[in-house]
Amino acid sequence: MKVRLEKVKGTRDLLPEEMAKRRWVFERIREVFERYNFHEVLTPTFEYTKLFQLRSGEEVVEQLYAFDDKGGRNLSLRPDMTSSVARLYVNQFQNAPKPIKWYYMANMFRYEEPQSGRYREFWQAGVELLGSDKVEADAEVIALFVESYLAVGLEDFTVNIGDRVLLDEFARMLGVEDDVGLMRLIDKKDKMSREDFIGALKEFGLNDEGVEKVLSLIEIKGIPGEVLPKAEELFTSGEAKDEIARLYELVDLLDAYGVSKWVRIDLGIARGFDYYTSIVFEAIAPNDLGIGSIGGGGRYDNLIEVFGGKPTPATGFAIGIERLIPILERKGLLPEVKLRPDVYVIPIGGDREVKKAAIEIVQGLREAMVGADIELTGRKLRKALDYAGRLGVPYVVLIGKKDLEAGRITLRDMKTGEQRNIEKERAVEEILGILGV
Amino acid sequence: MKVRLEKVKGTRDLLPEEMAKRRWVFERIREVFERYNFHEVLTPTFEYTKLFQLRSGEEVVEQLYAFDDKGGRNLSLRPDMTSSVARLYVNQFQNAPKPIKWYYMANMFRYEEPQSGRYREFWQAGVELLGSDKVEADAEVIALFVESYLAVGLEDFTVNIGDRVLLDEFARMLGVEDDVGLMRLIDKKDKMSREDFIGALKEFGLNDEGVEKVLSLIEIKGIPGEVLPKAEELFTSGEAKDEIARLYELVDLLDAYGVSKWVRIDLGIARGFDYYTSIVFEAIAPNDLGIGSIGGGGRYDNLIEVFGGKPTPATGFAIGIERLIPILERKGLLPEVKLRPDVYVIPIGGDREVKKAAIEIVQGLREAMVGADIELTGRKLRKALDYAGRLGVPYVVLIGKKDLEAGRITLRDMKTGEQRNIEKERAVEEILGILGV
Repeated sequence: MKVRLEKVKGTRDLLPEEMAKRRWVFERIREVFERYNFHEVLTPTFEYTKLFQLRSGEEVVEQLYAFDDKGGRNLSLRPDMTSSVARLYVNQFQNAPKPIKWYYMANMFRYEEPQSGRYREFWQAGVELLGSDKVEADAEVIALFVESYLAVGLEDFTVNIGDRVLLDEFARMLGVEDDVGLMRLIDKKDKMSREDFIGALKEFGLNDEGVEKVLSLIEIKGIPGEVLPKAEELFTSGEAKDEIARLYELVDLLDAYGVSKWVRIDLGIARGFDYYTSIVFEAIAPNDLGIGSIGGGGRYDNLIEVFGGKPTPATGFAIGIERLIPILERKGLLPEVKLRPDVYVIPIGGDREVKKAAIEIVQGLREAMVGADIELTGRKLRKALDYAGRLGVPYVVLIGKKDLEAGRITLRDMKTGEQRNIEKERAVEEILGILGV
Repeated sequence: MKVRLEKVKGTRDLLPEEMAKRRWVFERIREVFERYNFHEVLTPTFEYTKLFQLRSGEEVVEQLYAFDDKGGRNLSLRPDMTSSVARLYVNQFQNAPKPIKWYYMANMFRYEEPQSGRYREFWQAGVELLGSDKVEADAEVIALFVESYLAVGLEDFTVNIGDRVLLDEFARMLGVEDDVGLMRLIDKKDKMSREDFIGALKEFGLNDEGVEKVLSLIEIKGIPGEVLPKAEELFTSGEAKDEIARLYELVDLLDAYGVSKWVRIDLGIARGFDYYTSIVFEAIAPNDLGIGSIGGGGRYDNLIEVFGGKPTPATGFAIGIERLIPILERKGLLPEVKLRPDVYVIPIGGDREVKKAAIEIVQGLREAMVGADIELTGRKLRKALDYAGRLGVPYVVLIGKKDLEAGRITLRDMKTGEQRNIEKERAVEEILGILGV
């Protein structure tokens, strides 16, 4: 039988250079999360499938990696972290002091068509703030969202804020029963032409007046001070007015946070998941890679209750690492990664004492926190030097039997080709000096 | 329908304190890995099931989390990383300069009975060194294995080294056909009484002489200089003599690495996986938690070929994080974790300007890299102070409307209860001074 030796479609192997860059991105984001007093949690990779079915959007449920384990449990790989975090909260933290501020950096799984910046296994860095229904909590989370992107050097992006209360109200105003369906449609507006969008709205059952209203809704988009007055005109109910007042306060607080430069209102945003209940938001960074939203979130005040907990308001976001990194890469914002050792030690010939002397030197350097490596394949000197050259190692230590008997080693500067003898006992110290350690 | 709201059996939720400690452990180990010039890779969480069936031990295959995805592919969650890394090597790195030195820090999945330090989802930190058949490579990997434990402060442990060539030879000497079965049995010797072990050997089909020989084999255990001569007596074939010479050289090189204090020989070690071909090893740290091996590895020179690659010798190890951490915890070797902010800012009352002033102060502190938090639930002053007290925050900033109008805020030292007024504009600077930042 022919073995399937490839990786599975929609998944990737992350190689050393990419991993080093990803670590840098995660660490920069982690620093901001921690400074905002969020703390890391990690839930299991799989949960009972029921957990995800209970409240995730239809689309997410269709995309679940679900299976029966050997004990007959129906499990799924997590498609996002919020459901798992909500379960953890209900299990153990209902009586803990509020608010709870958690973050995670973890991988998720969705069976969907691979495309630019979209994989079947992908990573998110996100936060959940549980236990406050106040707009201050939304502001804190959105400010952190903005600062997370700034922390990795991204500046050309906007965080677009929408509102599910207003969208619900809008559906009522139109007399639409399938409000979730309408939201999904509106959510996809940026992925189709205006004509296609109008066609889809008519197919959905809207008359010309309804289509007109949707088009005026999605034009409520731009700088808050300019577009929120338009929202006040469009919406007349008391509930909608209260929600617009909430948006005004949010925008005001975000100004105090110093992030309003990146904030826009876009009432046409719904976000795919069903569980959002008020403010929703997503980040967009202009790019020529076909990558849409690089992260998003919102308030979900009902989810904990749906999972059997006491009613607990909550808000949070997730940053899509596979969306973010290609944009940072394209903009040259990722750091140079050094994958080579500073020193490479080559024992010449198979003599045991020479090998041991080489080990002593490489270990002496490593103890001094220098990245050092040693020839391990028994190849000839020429080939070993070729290998060191391909790695780009700046300094090579050569140890031959005769030199060693005379108490010496040879240090070769790979850039200049210059070689000089050093007393073996002083070799580590001298090399540290040359490296400036 | 009643929702299953618990986590799945054999899995765990990792809470902030535990996550912070795990990060510390991973970072210490990562530093050593990098200093030895190993670089991080990450393969997908699932692979074609065939990949794992091809060469993992029977036990591992029985424990696979296998499932069909929506495209009809039979996939499994990885039970270890070595097969995936070997696949990656065959896919992309056969022509890369050798040796390749990779490490990983990732989660694995096995359906087995949960017990002390054993979960169905667990993490490993490991390395693979591909492309050298030399004992120098084994020495480098075993030295790194020892240093990884030292890096997290563990000193009371041994790395016990066995050899699959010698075990194979031993099975031939006994005339045993099911050599893998015999190895599995010998591997379990420490989990049963001497009587049970003898009984199991007889049941396996050994006569008294055979049992006697096995008992003498498993007594070849201890300090290398003392027990390797016993091995020379027991084994007579040329192949076995060569392998014993390899062990002598390994021990000599490990001495040059400065790690021989932790090295023991134990010819009764087989390691569960079938793919090892020569030196195998495992780390044991005495503990009262019922935790056996805290990591292990060995040489696997055939695996790449089995996966369709050109023959490529390889050696590596994995450290079991869920085994290691409870032992570090019990020994008090894990660092204290600080989960509280240094400053907590409380806006008093619902005034918008007060809230904004509070945000400006908390943001000023965060910009100076101070962990600072802000009251987000709108609760009354007394409750907000209680919350700050429960978090253990050393300093609280109070901002009231009247104070703010007078350009002042109040700084409260939570230890002494002392309060003093500070000019608002100078608040961040003064607090940084008090914190010594």
